[in-house]
Amino acid sequence: MRDTWSYFPSGKIIFGNGAIHKLGELLKNMNARNIFLITDKGIVQSGILNTVMHILEKDNFQVKVFDGTTPEPPVSKVLECYEYAKKEINADVIIGLGGGSSIDLAKVVALLVAHGGQPQDYFGENAIPSAIAPLIAIPTTAGTGSEVTSVAVVTDTVNNIKVGISNNYLRPAVALLDPELTMQLPPYVTACSGIDALAHAIEAYLAKDFKYIQAEGDILFQGSAPISDTLALQAIELISKNLVTAVQQGTNLEARSNMLLGSLLAGLAFSNAGTAAAHALAYPIGGLSKSPHGEVTGLLLPYVISYNARTTGDKINKLAQALHIPAHNLHLASDKIQLVVSHIIDILQQIGLPTQLHSIGIKREQLPEIAEKAIQIERLIRNNPRAATIGGFIDLLEKAY
Amino acid sequence: MRDTWSYFPSGKIIFGNGAIHKLGELLKNMNARNIFLITDKGIVQSGILNTVMHILEKDNFQVKVFDGTTPEPPVSKVLECYEYAKKEINADVIIGLGGGSSIDLAKVVALLVAHGGQPQDYFGENAIPSAIAPLIAIPTTAGTGSEVTSVAVVTDTVNNIKVGISNNYLRPAVALLDPELTMQLPPYVTACSGIDALAHAIEAYLAKDFKYIQAEGDILFQGSAPISDTLALQAIELISKNLVTAVQQGTNLEARSNMLLGSLLAGLAFSNAGTAAAHALAYPIGGLSKSPHGEVTGLLLPYVISYNARTTGDKINKLAQALHIPAHNLHLASDKIQLVVSHIIDILQQIGLPTQLHSIGIKREQLPEIAEKAIQIERLIRNNPRAATIGGFIDLLEKAY
Ligand SMILES: [Fe+2]
Ligand SMILES: [Fe+2]
Repeated sequence: MRDTWSYFPSGKIIFGNGAIHKLGELLKNMNARNIFLITDKGIVQSGILNTVMHILEKDNFQVKVFDGTTPEPPVSKVLECYEYAKKEINADVIIGLGGGSSIDLAKVVALLVAHGGQPQDYFGENAIPSAIAPLIAIPTTAGTGSEVTSVAVVTDTVNNIKVGISNNYLRPAVALLDPELTMQLPPYVTACSGIDALAHAIEAYLAKDFKYIQAEGDILFQGSAPISDTLALQAIELISKNLVTAVQQGTNLEARSNMLLGSLLAGLAFSNAGTAAAHALAYPIGGLSKSPHGEVTGLLLPYVISYNARTTGDKINKLAQALHIPAHNLHLASDKIQLVVSHIIDILQQIGLPTQLHSIGIKREQLPEIAEKAIQIERLIRNNPRAATIGGFIDLLEKAY
Repeated sequence: MRDTWSYFPSGKIIFGNGAIHKLGELLKNMNARNIFLITDKGIVQSGILNTVMHILEKDNFQVKVFDGTTPEPPVSKVLECYEYAKKEINADVIIGLGGGSSIDLAKVVALLVAHGGQPQDYFGENAIPSAIAPLIAIPTTAGTGSEVTSVAVVTDTVNNIKVGISNNYLRPAVALLDPELTMQLPPYVTACSGIDALAHAIEAYLAKDFKYIQAEGDILFQGSAPISDTLALQAIELISKNLVTAVQQGTNLEARSNMLLGSLLAGLAFSNAGTAAAHALAYPIGGLSKSPHGEVTGLLLPYVISYNARTTGDKINKLAQALHIPAHNLHLASDKIQLVVSHIIDILQQIGLPTQLHSIGIKREQLPEIAEKAIQIERLIRNNPRAATIGGFIDLLEKAY
């Protein structure tokens, strides 16, 4: 039994409409002159890069832009971006501007700028010796929480798998969150990234209590503990209340703001508590389906909650409350779980996302292979409140099929 | 109107029964060899210092101990401690072990070790250029939250006033919280420090919304904002539920643990949001009365909530809920406020603390002077949801008399 929990803080958080206009002042306080900015073509086309460049040029910063980020960037992309940075500018500060992939790429480049080597040297956990280069993360989607988390996901093209680099030094020095930058996000991207944030918050909240995580020594994902629980519950309330509106009314600034706040809080929570079975299962499914990560985790979420039903204990009451489900008249925990599951399936339908695996191109005969691969992702599986078995996971996947 | 809020994180948090036994490993991870430990005579007598020294000696750290901390240490004490540190050891890490005063003293010494000068050079806000020396805070009381806050209180003996040094660089690198270290705390100290933590949480939660704080540029105390609100509410729930038990049953480890967690969360909240009228009024009262800080803020708390009644808006509902007051059947906000006020007075009575100013040695003719001095503490007064007027404050003090 583990007897202590740790909470690793993120960097400084700045949040609000128009917060992007604080960027110049922020950089001056960091004594920065030379900036390396990492983004993607979508951010260029949307005009957001222009807005940011105007702010930076007003204060005469030297800026070099890399706009070639691709989703879950391959190692070759990381090296291309890093070589470009080395050649073009002696950066005081690195900025990641965009969705999770731009911020993740910026994290790994900031890591290489500080410590050299190859991305592969840092795969896994705990291989970073000290702080990375000063990094400002400016998210334009509400989902990954990467602006505050300790994780960067890249693609190992040699072994053709997604790989995480996980280390508390990867948390950006500053998270600058401006809801106005998320206003142009299309409904489908809003839906996928938003439901992923809900999956982060719910998996962090329902994770096994830190006391019973089977691991020795320092671990990054520690299971459920008080601070992550508090932040996760608040994230669940914000996301469940605002996701449908944000998808259906893209210019509803209040809903956008609450989604961005919700995904931030979910990031703070899950980067300490960890996620669990829905994320473990999403990895092999992501390798077989073209669906975005959030579409997969969102789809799995209700089935995983059902799978975990008997092990959620008292938490189901606060979860139902955070989801604004009137469950206090129900006496059986199983009835409450059922309401929670229906509520999440309802959200998925309202935002136009699939609720069954066959509709994202998974074949029934692939289910055993998915279960077998998922069960090997130790750091997530040990977080799940119900023990994972091949049979249990196949059964779960059959229900989700 | 301000359009953004910031959240400044604390250092790493480690929490749990027996957490003190992680100290050796923690110091090794920080590459520390030479330790300067700041504490007080009470910690020596209680045997806690012995426990800590055994842990440190097991791993052959070089340790020098300063056990001369006094409450709200005068500038002369700070200099004495700093000179002793300079003479005796080239410290890699400074440890503050004890109540708020030991941790505050350790903060200022860590500041002088890193940047030199005199304590006076840093009075007020924003005068610290960069990080202070690596500092581990180990609280033995549940109250100030100093283990995570940006504030250190010292006594300016020239002008005979308490002075704060407030800067985000003052947050300790590590907060190591072990509820077992708080078990020996006497009932009166448990009561005073615990009710102060409740005052921190409630004042942070009911603080004026960040949008309407009247100040330009970067400010340390920013008013109510989402993350501090979430943490404050959780602190209110934990403290209000456990304070009476912790006072009445000192060896109830669960109550002690929840109090330590509550005061930690309150520290995270108020060091971002700020406190308000109860703390502003407590400063001049503290100059006139021998009462401990928490006895004064706790006494004032219900009267300040009454004073602010019409300006708390919807927050009264969540506040009542966090206090487990069945207020959902009441329609009038004023009725709910009344229940909250009675509940806090009841807690004060249950833990044996005074509820009226005359019983802590204040004279009625001193009330106008108190009101006048309190109203000048701009950074707290501008946080209060109801505007402060001399007349209003005198009226408040009369009711509290
Ligand atoms: Fe995810
Ligand atoms: Fe206080």
